[in-house]
Amino acid sequence: MAIPKTMKAAVLFGYGDLRVTQKPVPVLGEGEALLKVGSVAICGSDPAIIAKGWPGHPPLGEFIPGHEFTGTVVAVAPDVTEVKLGERVTVEPHKGCGRCVNCLRGLYTTCLNYGKPEKGHRHYGFSSNGAYAEYAACHVNTLHRLPEAISFEEGALLTTAGTVLYGYERVGGVRPGETVVVTGPGALGLISAQAAKTLGAGRVILTGTREDRLAVGRRMGADITLNARETNVRDAIMELTDGIGADLVVECTGQAGPAAEALDLVRKSGRISYNGIYHEPVTLQLNKIVQWNLLITGPKAEGMWNTERAIPLMVGGRLDLKPLITHRFRLDEINLAFETFTGRAGGAIKVIVNP
Amino acid sequence: MAIPKTMKAAVLFGYGDLRVTQKPVPVLGEGEALLKVGSVAICGSDPAIIAKGWPGHPPLGEFIPGHEFTGTVVAVAPDVTEVKLGERVTVEPHKGCGRCVNCLRGLYTTCLNYGKPEKGHRHYGFSSNGAYAEYAACHVNTLHRLPEAISFEEGALLTTAGTVLYGYERVGGVRPGETVVVTGPGALGLISAQAAKTLGAGRVILTGTREDRLAVGRRMGADITLNARETNVRDAIMELTDGIGADLVVECTGQAGPAAEALDLVRKSGRISYNGIYHEPVTLQLNKIVQWNLLITGPKAEGMWNTERAIPLMVGGRLDLKPLITHRFRLDEINLAFETFTGRAGGAIKVIVNP
Amino acid sequence: MAIPKTMKAAVLFGYGDLRVTQKPVPVLGEGEALLKVGSVAICGSDPAIIAKGWPGHPPLGEFIPGHEFTGTVVAVAPDVTEVKLGERVTVEPHKGCGRCVNCLRGLYTTCLNYGKPEKGHRHYGFSSNGAYAEYAACHVNTLHRLPEAISFEEGALLTTAGTVLYGYERVGGVRPGETVVVTGPGALGLISAQAAKTLGAGRVILTGTREDRLAVGRRMGADITLNARETNVRDAIMELTDGIGADLVVECTGQAGPAAEALDLVRKSGRISYNGIYHEPVTLQLNKIVQWNLLITGPKAEGMWNTERAIPLMVGGRLDLKPLITHRFRLDEINLAFETFTGRAGGAIKVIVNP
Amino acid sequence: MAIPKTMKAAVLFGYGDLRVTQKPVPVLGEGEALLKVGSVAICGSDPAIIAKGWPGHPPLGEFIPGHEFTGTVVAVAPDVTEVKLGERVTVEPHKGCGRCVNCLRGLYTTCLNYGKPEKGHRHYGFSSNGAYAEYAACHVNTLHRLPEAISFEEGALLTTAGTVLYGYERVGGVRPGETVVVTGPGALGLISAQAAKTLGAGRVILTGTREDRLAVGRRMGADITLNARETNVRDAIMELTDGIGADLVVECTGQAGPAAEALDLVRKSGRISYNGIYHEPVTLQLNKIVQWNLLITGPKAEGMWNTERAIPLMVGGRLDLKPLITHRFRLDEINLAFETFTGRAGGAIKVIVNP
Repeated sequence: MAIPKTMKAAVLFGYGDLRVTQKPVPVLGEGEALLKVGSVAICGSDPAIIAKGWPGHPPLGEFIPGHEFTGTVVAVAPDVTEVKLGERVTVEPHKGCGRCVNCLRGLYTTCLNYGKPEKGHRHYGFSSNGAYAEYAACHVNTLHRLPEAISFEEGALLTTAGTVLYGYERVGGVRPGETVVVTGPGALGLISAQAAKTLGAGRVILTGTREDRLAVGRRMGADITLNARETNVRDAIMELTDGIGADLVVECTGQAGPAAEALDLVRKSGRISYNGIYHEPVTLQLNKIVQWNLLITGPKAEGMWNTERAIPLMVGGRLDLKPLITHRFRLDEINLAFETFTGRAGGAIKVIVNP
Repeated sequence: MAIPKTMKAAVLFGYGDLRVTQKPVPVLGEGEALLKVGSVAICGSDPAIIAKGWPGHPPLGEFIPGHEFTGTVVAVAPDVTEVKLGERVTVEPHKGCGRCVNCLRGLYTTCLNYGKPEKGHRHYGFSSNGAYAEYAACHVNTLHRLPEAISFEEGALLTTAGTVLYGYERVGGVRPGETVVVTGPGALGLISAQAAKTLGAGRVILTGTREDRLAVGRRMGADITLNARETNVRDAIMELTDGIGADLVVECTGQAGPAAEALDLVRKSGRISYNGIYHEPVTLQLNKIVQWNLLITGPKAEGMWNTERAIPLMVGGRLDLKPLITHRFRLDEINLAFETFTGRAGGAIKVIVNP
Repeated sequence: MAIPKTMKAAVLFGYGDLRVTQKPVPVLGEGEALLKVGSVAICGSDPAIIAKGWPGHPPLGEFIPGHEFTGTVVAVAPDVTEVKLGERVTVEPHKGCGRCVNCLRGLYTTCLNYGKPEKGHRHYGFSSNGAYAEYAACHVNTLHRLPEAISFEEGALLTTAGTVLYGYERVGGVRPGETVVVTGPGALGLISAQAAKTLGAGRVILTGTREDRLAVGRRMGADITLNARETNVRDAIMELTDGIGADLVVECTGQAGPAAEALDLVRKSGRISYNGIYHEPVTLQLNKIVQWNLLITGPKAEGMWNTERAIPLMVGGRLDLKPLITHRFRLDEINLAFETFTGRAGGAIKVIVNP
Repeated sequence: MAIPKTMKAAVLFGYGDLRVTQKPVPVLGEGEALLKVGSVAICGSDPAIIAKGWPGHPPLGEFIPGHEFTGTVVAVAPDVTEVKLGERVTVEPHKGCGRCVNCLRGLYTTCLNYGKPEKGHRHYGFSSNGAYAEYAACHVNTLHRLPEAISFEEGALLTTAGTVLYGYERVGGVRPGETVVVTGPGALGLISAQAAKTLGAGRVILTGTREDRLAVGRRMGADITLNARETNVRDAIMELTDGIGADLVVECTGQAGPAAEALDLVRKSGRISYNGIYHEPVTLQLNKIVQWNLLITGPKAEGMWNTERAIPLMVGGRLDLKPLITHRFRLDEINLAFETFTGRAGGAIKVIVNP
């Protein structure tokens, strides 16, 4: 495949000023492959990056955001044998330095050399360039081969699915037959609900305030949905669990109220995973962590190769994220895509940009 | 429900001499419920118990075997509120003493007071009386309520399902997307194959020598079956895994050859669960455990409440064990039932006795 | 040993009204041993119990508090063979029901039948009678034999040591060579500091505000102490850890400020154990749990038999809790003992009552 | 420090033919530091490497063995900031590729690109050149800074200590107060015994056949030693544990008899770590793994950064490996050093070569 010298790319020229322009196609470094970008999904963190940047992002006028994406390998560095030309892949945004103690123990999403490209760290779309572009250069450590059964669009959601799976890994796994409560029917919550069922939960209870989203949750496998506008969630969960509480609560609203209430939904010796982005401090009845012998974790992104774990589940349809994809745009329409996403226009959940 | 003074029961009068006779209905002790027995499944360990007894079994002439069973609560001791009259239950055979350190740490299937009824230990059908009878007295610690959606017959397989789940718990869980090899398509292997998929395995490979059993495995969810009479299993698995090996091997044949070969099927830093009954010593390339950084476990029965975990999975059909039930007999026909089971007459897998 | 009919006991007659009076010596139930009480340590939770009671405590006029204690077995129920007359023991206060799912999985300090003696649950000195008395009846599940090398007084601190060890068990263990920060040099903190070192921590940093307590910490094995009145604790810990943070933070102050600050002291992918009693809600930068991939637990008391684990460590002097014992009183002086404890008179840390 | 062009090095010219000769000082690649070698310890695997090579070793005439070593940094590649000139370091022999799934999950000692230097894998002294030389080039991923308190000679044993610690990590840690049996008082066994105590074991029982080695074990902290020539080890351990068995058995003999017998020494629900090199297949009573609910692991070398964990323990003297160092030689005397080691001349345990 002939690779041009320049490409279309959405570049951040100033905070809030994202524009499609021509840029050089990236040059490959050691261990890297060049991708012809297939699809990019807008992440909940993207609007904030565009509005306010990110610590250590590439210079304004150079910075290409976008970090949930798929593509086709069109070139590889000389040392790369892990992928071949023409292969379709999905990309996870974190590449650790590979030399700090966290990386050496497998914890590359918490690399101690975060934001130091000279040490080999990359965070596509954050501290390194990303994928709102025709081409992107990615290290093989971040590539996962995409079977034919997975489209570019659905494959672009694999990073989020990997985050969900890493959350379950950190919190001790979904244990067979457990009652799992997921709070917040955004993309993360909806995938969390479906994944819990796919991993053997006995019963998945999804809570939220928007009926249309809860309906999506039911289609995606939630056994029970509770609308917090209509129901006292705590009482309902206690009744559903004979007064004991849920085995596992997965908090996906990112809001202080539900984050604090999670402690009221869980059983003695239960577990809580905080998966949201919490912009505000949260006031907790901390004593309950001790008196109820709780375990609490929060997953830093799609760690420990969990993106790869999600692939066979998606192939078999046990993770079916197509219901989340509500809108598609061309790269030229990227600002419209963002407006649709942030405004939840037309019930937008995941909005795809196809360069 | 009027409870008679006596009942029909299959009693072991001498090794190999099991006969149906009249016996007193059991008297309840503290914490016990009386069950009208629904169904009993013949376990692979039953023929050996009948042929040779079991260490510390009740006296010949008194001993009632049978330990995979369901029933209806017809009476309870005064301190029992956990179950109510008329409720349908399945029973797990192990009740720990509750006072040794293993029980206090949750490891009741390896109770250090095994076979000491005076300390509160019970092992129904082994060191205590079991369920080839019209009635059985069981401690509430061993009872699991059966939803209407589960029949007595399928419910009688929940103990085996609990053993499968405990095996997965001990070996670190089925991790999302993993390739799991199950060797041996007996009841334990078939359930292991189905459960792996239900718990999120990416791909389940079932190996065996009998084509009809492998066919059952495919119906129950195995993605790939390998007939060891036709295929070099090791080569096939290496090819299927790009030369790396399986993430997890679950050995269910109970035979020395496959048990040793399990080490050849697993990946570096992989895991093996030995689930069979190994009558012979097994010669292993032990060095591989070290050089390949393996983790090996074997589950002692349905430990840590895993029988309960299986129930919601069965309700939803994610564990569907009905294909295993091939034959049914009345209690009076128990010796015919055993002949059918041990002779695998008519492709017998699980044989049910309905008292 | 002749056992009298009545005994001296400190009885709660009204909230705040604890008086020594004559009471019947307890009658043994199944599984119980009668102890001639050796020593009782005043726990930080005792003053609140005396001031305000505890949910489900025995009736005023009957309730004998006291739950950290040792004694000599002077009688046993007929079914008890685990301990013998004349043996010295320490007692853990929690006895689970043994029949709820938490107990069956080993989590007896979070028994779901808490406060239901009819189900077999006991919490000595809280929901059941305790040990500020000449005699106490205790279930064998709560007894741990005391070697000669351990005095009654030091042995009375084994429950606290068991809580410390359970905290470490819940938070994933002390891992070899780790940097552990312990905040708060009360009894729990001081034992936590010493235990961390005994379990293989590389370096233990103890923080607090009282110089005399920090000095005790240094005598008990803390490598570094930081006085928060003189030093910016966060800066100091970052400097000591090359800007990375501690591997594990054990919060023992029970106060909101340090509880929130714990998140600032820990490394990416680090762990926090909340061990204090938190009377106030705590406002946390919850987002850091997610972004830093943290794991947080809080131990409910001396769970999973950890009291037993502490004994061989104390015998060898690797846990040496004698420096904590600052004052001793007779049972008749119990109110003076409490005043000394709550007023920290004479630098009181652990105050012992010897009935 | 001026670095010469050539250096003295012990080179394998043919199997069994190790000779000291002049070789070029290694040229640094990316991420590497050049070390002036301080001390090298002969490992139990070295004699076999010299006699028979190792899969994929560098060409005869080029291959420099030696993989337990320390040194001083005398040069670094341009991208290296992790260590500085003049710093003293110890080296772990395994460097993973950093791009296979095992490396990405922290399991670099079981790198799937083992023996492929083009992928970044190194195994010093095995598939890459090692340290029986004046200089060695090592990747920063393998370097651990050595505090002044640790000599080059003792520091050369840190890799073995790291292997011992990784063994404990894999088998679930040494849990406080446990009874640990270590079989085989070689270097690995002696360190295992000492480390168990240092990590909080209650009691360490060391077994072996050579009284002088058992005496070293007692000096290094073993509580009890059992001479298998004089004592029935199984009976003694059962007596010491009230008939229950050890919580953890660490097999370090590498011989089939003790490897099989390990199953007889462990308690129900206990753990076994196989740490030896097992040249022969081992015949096990495999059924016991299932019936006794065992967990078995074997550590592949000094994985997951455990070499670093050992350093603070050695600084404080909690790991004191000096008693293991029995002999020292110059590089010119390397063949005499090997003869001393293999012949156990003069009670040789660890033999040091100081280039």
